[in-house]
Amino acid sequence: MLIVPPAQFLSSNLNSNALKWDDELEAHHSSVPVWRQRKMIPRRKHNASSVSLPPDDKHASSDYILSDGGPREGCCMALRRRFNRKTLHKRLPITAWLPQYNAEKAVGDLIAGITVGLTVIPQSLAYSNIAGLPPQYGLYGSFLGCFIYIFLGGCRAVPAGPTAIASLLTFQVAGGVIEKAILLNFLTGLVELLMGVLGLGFLINFVSGPVSSGFTSAVALMIATSQIKDLFAIPVTGGTFLQQWISIFRNLHSASLWDPVLGFICIALLLLMRKIGMIKLGSREECGPSTRQKVLTKCLWMVGTCRNAIVVVVTGSLGYWFVSMHGSSPVRLMGAIPSGVPMPQLPPFSYVRADNSTADFLEMLSELGSGVLVIPLIVLLEDIAICKAFSDGRTIDATQEMIALGVMNVFNSFMQAYPGGGSLARSVVSNGSGVKTTFNGIYTGVIVILALQFFTQYFEFIPKAALAAVIISAILFMVEYDVVKPMWRAKKLDLVPGVGTFVLCLTLPIELGILTGVVVNIIFILYHAARPKLSVEMLKTEGGVEYLMITPDRCLMFPSVEYVRRLVNKCAAGGDVPVVLECTHIYSADYTAAKSIEQLTADFHARHQPLYFYNVKPSVCSIFEAVAKPEHFVVFYEDDELDRLLAADGRAPPAKPPPLP
Amino acid sequence: MLIVPPAQFLSSNLNSNALKWDDELEAHHSSVPVWRQRKMIPRRKHNASSVSLPPDDKHASSDYILSDGGPREGCCMALRRRFNRKTLHKRLPITAWLPQYNAEKAVGDLIAGITVGLTVIPQSLAYSNIAGLPPQYGLYGSFLGCFIYIFLGGCRAVPAGPTAIASLLTFQVAGGVIEKAILLNFLTGLVELLMGVLGLGFLINFVSGPVSSGFTSAVALMIATSQIKDLFAIPVTGGTFLQQWISIFRNLHSASLWDPVLGFICIALLLLMRKIGMIKLGSREECGPSTRQKVLTKCLWMVGTCRNAIVVVVTGSLGYWFVSMHGSSPVRLMGAIPSGVPMPQLPPFSYVRADNSTADFLEMLSELGSGVLVIPLIVLLEDIAICKAFSDGRTIDATQEMIALGVMNVFNSFMQAYPGGGSLARSVVSNGSGVKTTFNGIYTGVIVILALQFFTQYFEFIPKAALAAVIISAILFMVEYDVVKPMWRAKKLDLVPGVGTFVLCLTLPIELGILTGVVVNIIFILYHAARPKLSVEMLKTEGGVEYLMITPDRCLMFPSVEYVRRLVNKCAAGGDVPVVLECTHIYSADYTAAKSIEQLTADFHARHQPLYFYNVKPSVCSIFEAVAKPEHFVVFYEDDELDRLLAADGRAPPAKPPPLP
Repeated sequence: MLIVPPAQFLSSNLNSNALKWDDELEAHHSSVPVWRQRKMIPRRKHNASSVSLPPDDKHASSDYILSDGGPREGCCMALRRRFNRKTLHKRLPITAWLPQYNAEKAVGDLIAGITVGLTVIPQSLAYSNIAGLPPQYGLYGSFLGCFIYIFLGGCRAVPAGPTAIASLLTFQVAGGVIEKAILLNFLTGLVELLMGVLGLGFLINFVSGPVSSGFTSAVALMIATSQIKDLFAIPVTGGTFLQQWISIFRNLHSASLWDPVLGFICIALLLLMRKIGMIKLGSREECGPSTRQKVLTKCLWMVGTCRNAIVVVVTGSLGYWFVSMHGSSPVRLMGAIPSGVPMPQLPPFSYVRADNSTADFLEMLSELGSGVLVIPLIVLLEDIAICKAFSDGRTIDATQEMIALGVMNVFNSFMQAYPGGGSLARSVVSNGSGVKTTFNGIYTGVIVILALQFFTQYFEFIPKAALAAVIISAILFMVEYDVVKPMWRAKKLDLVPGVGTFVLCLTLPIELGILTGVVVNIIFILYHAARPKLSVEMLKTEGGVEYLMITPDRCLMFPSVEYVRRLVNKCAAGGDVPVVLECTHIYSADYTAAKSIEQLTADFHARHQPLYFYNVKPSVCSIFEAVAKPEHFVVFYEDDELDRLLAADGRAPPAKPPPLP
Repeated sequence: MLIVPPAQFLSSNLNSNALKWDDELEAHHSSVPVWRQRKMIPRRKHNASSVSLPPDDKHASSDYILSDGGPREGCCMALRRRFNRKTLHKRLPITAWLPQYNAEKAVGDLIAGITVGLTVIPQSLAYSNIAGLPPQYGLYGSFLGCFIYIFLGGCRAVPAGPTAIASLLTFQVAGGVIEKAILLNFLTGLVELLMGVLGLGFLINFVSGPVSSGFTSAVALMIATSQIKDLFAIPVTGGTFLQQWISIFRNLHSASLWDPVLGFICIALLLLMRKIGMIKLGSREECGPSTRQKVLTKCLWMVGTCRNAIVVVVTGSLGYWFVSMHGSSPVRLMGAIPSGVPMPQLPPFSYVRADNSTADFLEMLSELGSGVLVIPLIVLLEDIAICKAFSDGRTIDATQEMIALGVMNVFNSFMQAYPGGGSLARSVVSNGSGVKTTFNGIYTGVIVILALQFFTQYFEFIPKAALAAVIISAILFMVEYDVVKPMWRAKKLDLVPGVGTFVLCLTLPIELGILTGVVVNIIFILYHAARPKLSVEMLKTEGGVEYLMITPDRCLMFPSVEYVRRLVNKCAAGGDVPVVLECTHIYSADYTAAKSIEQLTADFHARHQPLYFYNVKPSVCSIFEAVAKPEHFVVFYEDDELDRLLAADGRAPPAKPPPLP
């Protein structure tokens, strides 16, 4: 019931070309002798009790592939009905969870939504600073997306809004120009939508764990560095990480006294509250925590979760008190923020440069450059990372996430927001608050709207150093130094793309850094494809004829075949023994491989040395047969045949049969 | 004796990083339960008679790999001695064949050398025309390289000198400027030497058969097109194939009468002589050909082989007759060619442009651009293709070929030659003439020197249309239309890079065309790595417990693991049955894979569904174990263990054992 023949192979991520390839690979499985994918002891033992497959499927099943589309559909009508409902659930996830919505879920969503709302406001103000934009632009991107994600989002723990990474990338691409940032958001949304429709979500699979870790860590350090200027109230210049730190050390002498004092106190408080939020009272006692302990634990957790809001409110009140009592503040404050929810309007398709010249759409597009392609992928990468972390074993639909993010960003751009997506930092808060469905977004969105409408006049008293402290104390935990050890233990070579990406992202433009990391990692795959391993054994047939068994461990494709041919020739040329090429692990081949196999058979023929192919998968066999001379290309599947083949080639077994034990 | 442990794994083509990777992959093979690479019927049958391996190697052998360096060396001293002699034979191949040189070989080389010499002179004159250079420059590159290849070359049938493809590329890169062409030759040689020393010869493995065929065919058509102007004596403009043909049709009306008449007569004669050369008299007779028939066959073959020289001599005499009798010729002639062997001198590191400005070395370098990297690779590609075609099953040392070509080109550049290499067209002649060793080059070289010294004054009477006919009638056989049919039968998808490269090479700059073809083909490999196939079977243990057996067919690396995780989850989530992941075919894994496997085990743990890993290769197992929680990651190797594992997980077999048959 879970096995479908290749013709029905349907994958949301594959285009028709890819499909054709798979079809082709899996052809011919009935016309030739059975290729035994697992001709081993367990198979033989279980054969008799293998019940779920119809008898004639028993062998051919190894050529069947698991479909991406779920269980095999019964009749055509049922298929269409189920397909329609399934597609609806897939493309409009609200239809899947809304019918089961109940009071318990509503409570969970309410608490999570409000908690995230209290987190997103200080974060949005701070992130717009990273993006080089006025603080209200962060808030502009924090409400509409939440509403949209309720309908289209596939993962309950994704709190849509500005993110640290997207803010940094926006700054690098748009350079702090509001119009460019908004247009970038619009284009990012369109690209995401297009990628979603074309099923290009699989592209992020090529960003490996090490590259992703290196990138995130580098971004975290860069974001922390970008906050130093507010923490010490000094001017910082320079584009790269190194230049910025040189500038910091040059200007440190001009730092004000009270900004860093406040900043470091805030950082200390934030880290302390973070620790406090992790305390679980009574968890070590045998009878478990008492009710009082549970309530207290919950309160401590609330303190830890709302630490950003607490710090912002307290330092904001402090700033307000200073200004109202003394007329000025010893630390630098945010300054006036225009109030009110922005009116929907088209994103700007032109802008006036600093030198009063006007840049039209095409000029803006060329100024944004590769950012229009990189930001969507990075935003999706962060979003999918959240989905994976909180999936609880459910499958993630990258295509749907891409569509949701695309619609979100396009609509957000009408609200003058800059690019955003699912925020990894807030998703932890959301999940910890017991989120149940994506409906929690409604509370977050409402809180942000209320804040924009009624509280922006209070935001101006928030000290800049306090916001810098909020970012720094959060971002430092994004530096993934803890993956180095398991990476070292698992596969040391993976440190190369990991550390490489980290270093390159800090020294090169960030998108170039991650691109180089991905390319280096792809070279690993190409090396793998180019250098298969061969194991060699000298064996004896039942008849007592010695032969050399050579087993390549992976598929034969163009980068590797000449290497295999050379090794097989080198290995076989030493003696005059017959050679058997064991092809069990060769799951695929191509025309170049077939040509090389033909040459290999010709090489052996020229040496008058027998060469046989053992257990060639039918789809591979048909590729080889299309090119090789049939009289040179001898395949056998049952090992009894080997003696017969050897005898036919004049390699009869020794006259006296070996004594049986 | 043919099996070496991984620590001794030595490959001339691998750098130390790659080596480390391989080492790592193959570690741990003794500390864990035996991974059975081929635990199948033949193995069990042959175990008792498997004699060549020491007993404790029997199982571990599957983790051993075949060395690129030949049989295992005995003791250390013997190893060093053999290594030294082997290296000498490898890096100075003359030391390998010279001691066995004898009279029979000398005769073969003499005939082959002279025949190739008679072919190379008209070809050199014609190829310099393709390269946009005066005719003597082709001859300048046709003698020193032959002498050098005697010492360094690994393949007897490689006639070193100008080639059609290299000439076209030289024209595209150097644009007919002599100084740039000579410097390009020098740099090409240096790059080839560097690639040889760094062992980068493996790069040409990434040019697949279809891409190579598409490229060669496109180049053949472009070369033929470039000769139309001489065939019709018309001016032809335009850089691309299409532009040139438009220009040809526009200017055809101004064609002279006698040039095309002579050209087409020559083409017809050349094709006729080619056919005549293939005639084998008496081969159909029962008693075999008589001596007279054999001699006649040889004469016909000689006519076919020397057809270029015959046509050039005859038409040259005709030209000489016209000029001496009438003072002028009805067809255009080559014109004066300076006589004499060039004096060795350094390649030019600057040149004077048409506008009288001087280009220094760096400017020349930037004008040559990527050609400095593309030409060495293409030249090697052609050279290796020759070596493969005439290897007779011997292994080809790409590194040594690269070094030989590099030294050849560097020295040729001192003789003011433009880039060349092994010529596929002449290698057929050489092989057909019974070449025995690379020593045949000495005769070819001497003939070219004699021609340069004494015969150049006669070359000026050769009609241009006759040389164009020589090229066209040879080059049309390079269009590989005959590979389309086997490609279609073997793997239709391979037509995409093949036809794609062909079309792109004709429309784009030629190096961009082949690069795009290679990239498209690499995407195939990446797709392969990203989308493994899973086969699924519902089986029963001996105890009668149903379980799902899922078998991925290739390695788990970062592009594919999330896909596999999603499919396994989707497949398993339907029911509550235990799942066994069969890992026999997973020959390799990485950190990202380990992380995903950890998440997969966590997914199953969250669903309280058992998941076991069956027959994991030790090197893969150690990668997974470094990341996964040990209590979730359960591996078994003997299928008796499955019932025990299931019982421990509370999935006891049904109370009543199933009746045995």
